[in-house]
Amino acid sequence: MDKLAKCPANYVPLTPLTFIKRASMVYAKRTSVIYAGVRFTWYQTYERCRRLASSLRSLNIVKNNVVSVLAPNVPALYEMHFAVPMAGAVLNAINTRLDAKNIATILRHSEAKVFFVDFQYVPLASEALRLLVADLKETSHEKIQHEMPLVIVIDDIDKPTGIRLGKLEYEQLIRHGNPKYNGEEVEDEWDSIALNYTSGTTSAPKGVVYSHRGAFLSTMSLIQGWEMSTEPVYLWSLPMFHCNGWTFTWGVAARGGTNVCIRNTTAREMYNGISTHNVTHMCCAPIVFNILLEAKPHERREITTKVNILTGGAPPPAALLKKMEDLGFDVMHAYGLTEATGPALVCEWQTKWNQLSQDRKAKLKSRQGVGILTLSDVDVKRKETMESVPSDGKTVGEIVLRGSSIMKGYLKDETETAKAFHKGWFFTGDVGVIHPDGYLEIKDRSKDVIISGGENISSVELESVLFNHPNILEVAVVAMPHPRWGESPCAFVVLKNPTTEEEIMVFCRKNMPKFMVPKKVEFVKELPKTGTGKVQKVELRKMAASFLITMDSKTQKSSSSSVTDRSWYHQQEEKVIAMSRI
Amino acid sequence: MDKLAKCPANYVPLTPLTFIKRASMVYAKRTSVIYAGVRFTWYQTYERCRRLASSLRSLNIVKNNVVSVLAPNVPALYEMHFAVPMAGAVLNAINTRLDAKNIATILRHSEAKVFFVDFQYVPLASEALRLLVADLKETSHEKIQHEMPLVIVIDDIDKPTGIRLGKLEYEQLIRHGNPKYNGEEVEDEWDSIALNYTSGTTSAPKGVVYSHRGAFLSTMSLIQGWEMSTEPVYLWSLPMFHCNGWTFTWGVAARGGTNVCIRNTTAREMYNGISTHNVTHMCCAPIVFNILLEAKPHERREITTKVNILTGGAPPPAALLKKMEDLGFDVMHAYGLTEATGPALVCEWQTKWNQLSQDRKAKLKSRQGVGILTLSDVDVKRKETMESVPSDGKTVGEIVLRGSSIMKGYLKDETETAKAFHKGWFFTGDVGVIHPDGYLEIKDRSKDVIISGGENISSVELESVLFNHPNILEVAVVAMPHPRWGESPCAFVVLKNPTTEEEIMVFCRKNMPKFMVPKKVEFVKELPKTGTGKVQKVELRKMAASFLITMDSKTQKSSSSSVTDRSWYHQQEEKVIAMSRI
Repeated sequence: MDKLAKCPANYVPLTPLTFIKRASMVYAKRTSVIYAGVRFTWYQTYERCRRLASSLRSLNIVKNNVVSVLAPNVPALYEMHFAVPMAGAVLNAINTRLDAKNIATILRHSEAKVFFVDFQYVPLASEALRLLVADLKETSHEKIQHEMPLVIVIDDIDKPTGIRLGKLEYEQLIRHGNPKYNGEEVEDEWDSIALNYTSGTTSAPKGVVYSHRGAFLSTMSLIQGWEMSTEPVYLWSLPMFHCNGWTFTWGVAARGGTNVCIRNTTAREMYNGISTHNVTHMCCAPIVFNILLEAKPHERREITTKVNILTGGAPPPAALLKKMEDLGFDVMHAYGLTEATGPALVCEWQTKWNQLSQDRKAKLKSRQGVGILTLSDVDVKRKETMESVPSDGKTVGEIVLRGSSIMKGYLKDETETAKAFHKGWFFTGDVGVIHPDGYLEIKDRSKDVIISGGENISSVELESVLFNHPNILEVAVVAMPHPRWGESPCAFVVLKNPTTEEEIMVFCRKNMPKFMVPKKVEFVKELPKTGTGKVQKVELRKMAASFLITMDSKTQKSSSSSVTDRSWYHQQEEKVIAMSRI
Repeated sequence: MDKLAKCPANYVPLTPLTFIKRASMVYAKRTSVIYAGVRFTWYQTYERCRRLASSLRSLNIVKNNVVSVLAPNVPALYEMHFAVPMAGAVLNAINTRLDAKNIATILRHSEAKVFFVDFQYVPLASEALRLLVADLKETSHEKIQHEMPLVIVIDDIDKPTGIRLGKLEYEQLIRHGNPKYNGEEVEDEWDSIALNYTSGTTSAPKGVVYSHRGAFLSTMSLIQGWEMSTEPVYLWSLPMFHCNGWTFTWGVAARGGTNVCIRNTTAREMYNGISTHNVTHMCCAPIVFNILLEAKPHERREITTKVNILTGGAPPPAALLKKMEDLGFDVMHAYGLTEATGPALVCEWQTKWNQLSQDRKAKLKSRQGVGILTLSDVDVKRKETMESVPSDGKTVGEIVLRGSSIMKGYLKDETETAKAFHKGWFFTGDVGVIHPDGYLEIKDRSKDVIISGGENISSVELESVLFNHPNILEVAVVAMPHPRWGESPCAFVVLKNPTTEEEIMVFCRKNMPKFMVPKKVEFVKELPKTGTGKVQKVELRKMAASFLITMDSKTQKSSSSSVTDRSWYHQQEEKVIAMSRI
């Protein structure tokens, strides 16, 4: 029994690259990618990937090199999900909402060899590159053999603008590439395929590394968990830079689907895409529901197909779920994190729930659910004792995961990697319960993450920036309900010298990405603390929940005012996205 | 990038055992198994598996030991698919249609440590054990430390009969087992999980070994390839001893479904199961279609749910497909073999085909299709040159497969293992073409090509034409020696209505090229079949060889007469297992 050896016929490394090769053969003539007036078939997409991969090799890209990209959901970014690993390299899709400083940090930390930049982000990328040069000059005495990445601009493929940054343009690489190049062989499924920086969960962004094995398995189980059947028409409302589009970059190829690429997640572009191409599937944070629901009549288009939405990032409020379903969307809730290659749990629907009331259904749907099939284990444990909590829907513990879809670790960060992997488990930092039916529900995030418009904001990171302000003595940041973003950061500040909210806002805008800037700064005499001197964020969250954020529909800017009536929030459920967090 | 190491949190061996543990947690109260008056939940099924596994350990079963079982599709056989590997052992589900000699050969070759026997098969098993004892005595001088397996009878769980073979009974093991036993840890996903003997395609049965990895991946991709959604109700019409029920033993647990176990694949039991439990899925060979279609009125029950059928083993004739769909079944065609852990290709349906005529649709559906997602590669090659054939739907070559769902190899048979794995591929022995749309179609088993007057005739093709004749129930075509053409096709036909040879000849001449028309049609009561229901063409060829074809030199027409008695076939019944037993 033991003598039967692995051989090339029966042991082939698991990799999502299988999907594109297969798609090019069995879905050759089917539409792979649609973007504005551009359409490709799977045969063409694979050929473009082959060309790009061979061009990358010609540019001296070798195994384990990092190829960074700053782009919206355009065909180029989709193609790079296959072409970069085909060249043996590791794809680093950068969050386009980051500021130049963060981008520079990522380019430096990842030692990116190539940096693809969509024409739209040329100013941001230029600034990041400027900071990187300055940074490198400063530390040139170190022995780090760091080189600046080769910059390649991605012009608009539908309507070229001529905007350039450096000499090379994406389509040149495609044109000059070898259409017969087969790609480097994946020698070991543990080899790295992607590098995604977490934003905000701690003060320093961490580079999460995925293996080919992990990416393959996550893709397989998410197709299955969401029950994405053959020939899906997938709208790219979720940024591909979010855990590689929750693996659906690879998944749509696996299912022979059509990728509908859009540049911006506006109501007009989304409705247009859905209606024109009969979209069947899309992923997004619950914030996008608001965009769809609040669209102006002229932005809307009739939706005739059933659109399946996989949502995550924050628990979708029941009221919002109901509205979406009324509009004809079928929403499934998933829970995950970058370290778990996107969704790790899905709220698998049970037939018997169909008989329940709309409210009860929405409540069940907003739970985080059950582990996907390639996760070996999901549990809720008391960290101190490693004991599992009982499945009573009450006893809280930390959510822990185990399985081959968990990241390889954090790039060049042994300390954080060791911290994340504890006694055989990955610790999510999220606190939850297990219901008697085995479904899991998050009760709180232990790391104080604020999820604003689908983006994670670390309150710790924000606090550390604010603390640099000369007039601030103490600061604590918590989540505050926000009608547009779901949550937004609210800063409680104890001053040492007089200053104004506006002044602090200006300071923030200078020192952090726009989406991280607190929507409200509240000055207090002192912060509520526990006996041991820890800030009682629970108390601050209660206060923040009472701040009235109103949306000025004309300026799209929000303003806030404190109200005393705690019940305000519940009265506003129609307008405000409720967060299930306490 | 290279420094990130595997750890227990991010690298867990792939194994179908994940599915049952998960099912016991997230589908705890859902019905797992139904058999006559017996019902279990997933929590109970897992507990029963834990108990059985711990009992097996108490009986000194250790890693890599083989546990054989001879049983129909009863709950015990289902449970053993998890309990046996939980004990670290390898499950060997024996084809119940084999004769005692074959069973004895398997028990000896596999060195089975335990032999579970369903009460119904006690006489057969006793005879097999008698042969095994005799065989062992004969060779006792050899150094083989072979022991007789421990025999454990499986009594009927619904209506115990009291029939025993040896002292132990299955439910005793369950009762005395430890309900908290977690099972042995799978140390390496390459470890063996199952051993399935191929029957009939060659003279000596070969023991095909599956790994945990292969079983996990095949299960995942078949769930996905068939688009088996959550909460399926699965009817066990396919024997679990066929490639572990084409992996759906594990797959139903993965999807939190319900296993409807039946003892016999009779029309009554199938209709009853489908109607009573609202079956959504079932697998079977096309021969089972006949059982369903030819059922007597009193055996039938109304079918109100849509039943998805996955069929394979032989290409389903278009006419048969149409009849099944008229009855409300939704048939998907798959192609595979024991060495590929069951289905390796599925005929994935394309939406655009919905507009085609019924005939054209059936023709498309009868093709073998496209590779499942965990197969790394499927190709059709000329063996001599290893060149791929063009995708023209015409050029034939041998179908070759590569990927982690291919068997580890043949147990204790290095020669055959080496033969099967050739230049990095697994050679199926089947001859086919690739159509321009990437779909593969088998033209023949390489042995079944009839070469007549220099023309290649596919017996499969000929059979599918003949099958359209309204009076034909079953048909098999083999080569017959011919004085003029070297070989010519000979058709063995089972009739449902009386007809003449001449009438069938006229039908053939109308529906196929002249050179393909069988030179002889022989009516038989039933076709000789292997235990797995494959027509034993070897036997038919022997019969065909005995038909004397004489050439009338004046008319250039040939006439034939059987030189042997027509009852020849029935005299062979001792040797040949007829399909009517299923």
